[in-house]
Amino acid sequence: MEETQVKFVISASEAESMAQKANLPSVLHLLPSLVPSAQRLARTPISNFHVGAVGIGGVSGRVFLGVNVEFLNLPLNYSIHAEQFLLTNLSLNAEPSLSHFAVSAAPCGHCRQFYQELRNASSLNVLIADSDLPATATAFTPLSHFLPHRFGPENLLSKHLPFLLEPHHNGLSFLTNSQPNGLTTTANNSLDSLRYAALDAANKSHAPYSGCPSGVALVDADGNIHKGSYAESAAYNPSIGPAQAALVAYIANGGGHGYENIVAAVLVEMESAIVKQEHAARLLFQTISPKCEFKVFLCVGATKRPSSI
Amino acid sequence: MEETQVKFVISASEAESMAQKANLPSVLHLLPSLVPSAQRLARTPISNFHVGAVGIGGVSGRVFLGVNVEFLNLPLNYSIHAEQFLLTNLSLNAEPSLSHFAVSAAPCGHCRQFYQELRNASSLNVLIADSDLPATATAFTPLSHFLPHRFGPENLLSKHLPFLLEPHHNGLSFLTNSQPNGLTTTANNSLDSLRYAALDAANKSHAPYSGCPSGVALVDADGNIHKGSYAESAAYNPSIGPAQAALVAYIANGGGHGYENIVAAVLVEMESAIVKQEHAARLLFQTISPKCEFKVFLCVGATKRPSSI
Ligand SMILES: [Zn+2]
Ligand SMILES: [Zn+2]
Repeated sequence: MEETQVKFVISASEAESMAQKANLPSVLHLLPSLVPSAQRLARTPISNFHVGAVGIGGVSGRVFLGVNVEFLNLPLNYSIHAEQFLLTNLSLNAEPSLSHFAVSAAPCGHCRQFYQELRNASSLNVLIADSDLPATATAFTPLSHFLPHRFGPENLLSKHLPFLLEPHHNGLSFLTNSQPNGLTTTANNSLDSLRYAALDAANKSHAPYSGCPSGVALVDADGNIHKGSYAESAAYNPSIGPAQAALVAYIANGGGHGYENIVAAVLVEMESAIVKQEHAARLLFQTISPKCEFKVFLCVGATKRPSSI
Repeated sequence: MEETQVKFVISASEAESMAQKANLPSVLHLLPSLVPSAQRLARTPISNFHVGAVGIGGVSGRVFLGVNVEFLNLPLNYSIHAEQFLLTNLSLNAEPSLSHFAVSAAPCGHCRQFYQELRNASSLNVLIADSDLPATATAFTPLSHFLPHRFGPENLLSKHLPFLLEPHHNGLSFLTNSQPNGLTTTANNSLDSLRYAALDAANKSHAPYSGCPSGVALVDADGNIHKGSYAESAAYNPSIGPAQAALVAYIANGGGHGYENIVAAVLVEMESAIVKQEHAARLLFQTISPKCEFKVFLCVGATKRPSSI
């Protein structure tokens, strides 16, 4: 089905009508059927191994896509897995939960761990859409089956704190008199909107383990702003950086085939951060878009840990 | 037992006598009993969550320790998990297989994935040494139980290629006329031994997926050289960088409590590398040991992919 380029976010009514046109009994059956279309959107200059993940929002019924993204000339741990892209896509569209997803290959352990950040991790329904199975199969299996003896937020956090995808309000504000590294006092309005977008992303960041939320906003050559929030894993390494999250937004919003359209990026992180994104984020942008201007603005929070809702 | 500081590598005969002194029926029982001692060696300035892993080499019977290591002022994906430290410790001591290991908490998904690089991954025996279980319990469970529907080297590589820990001979040599970034022609002998140590580490690197092996050698204030080989994961992100691997060697060899003793580090990677370690490795050393000199030397290989044995 659907051979034209599929969108990264599909409204609930659009998804319903797509399922009907394809004679599928439900939108759940649509998820695996969209996996091959998602796979074609992967950006894999290193592996050429295309992974697609398609999930449905637990509240809106919207359908979201995720693809894997690799970056040339950087270490492999700068990569974004399709499952991480999918959750980041939900996050940037303020979808508070994921109920089902289909993916082209069994999730790797790294992603199974990252998904533990969801409140419904154990009961989240996963379908592995192997090409040798009929695309309409709906043999969903709970995620708990894929990661027995799980370790996650429940082991470390109060359950009253927001989990990943749930609304976060980190209470961050700019340092008074703060000037970014290298910024002249003639800062223009477009930089101002970029830094407030990055602050907004930092305020939505999920960083309960380190207490160091952060956000990135980038602007493309057409003046569109794309923002991403840092999302932390209880197991540390599977965390997704704010620069990667903003690139998910850039790709999902159709920001171009390459990254040379990215003209400026702003990172907002805490003055007191012990987990610092600055240098890794700069390295990522300098590598993929050498002409991209990169600025850092520091912020402070009311409390060290993100507030509960 | 063993309240004095335990070593990161214990000979087979030493392990036998430690087990006997503690009235343990076998060395396998020694593994969980050493976990608390390992935990005390963890370096966790961010989480203060100490993880210890203790394993036994499948060939020599030596006992190896692993601890988690976190780095202030860097993103969390620069961290080293105890299980990754353990495998790196085996690798730098040329131990070709791991048969059993005990660990203080259930391995996270990221580590379960990294361990898929072992040829015996499915049958590798794991014991979770929770403090509420008797330290002498030997309820080992195969790793396959912890990561059903695994994805690993078998899905991507010929089984004739060496897996992680098995001997690698990548056939790398320096570019003729190569000069490191910033090196004067009056390069001294100590730099020369450092760059050959890094080349040796690169030749032992496990990088079958990208074809971009690399190695780091660092020297401490006492003139001791510590080297580490890049080790790649089929799932990309759980890979362990060459700088991290060299820091495992530095810690395991007793290189000091902090990192300020590290005076110089050399990275060797391929001229044609599409997975480039240079900038991330420099960032790591500059952050943990600001006075550390960092140099890069490029190499070439006979073939793009590592040779089989
Ligand atoms: Zn993954
Ligand atoms: Zn781990």
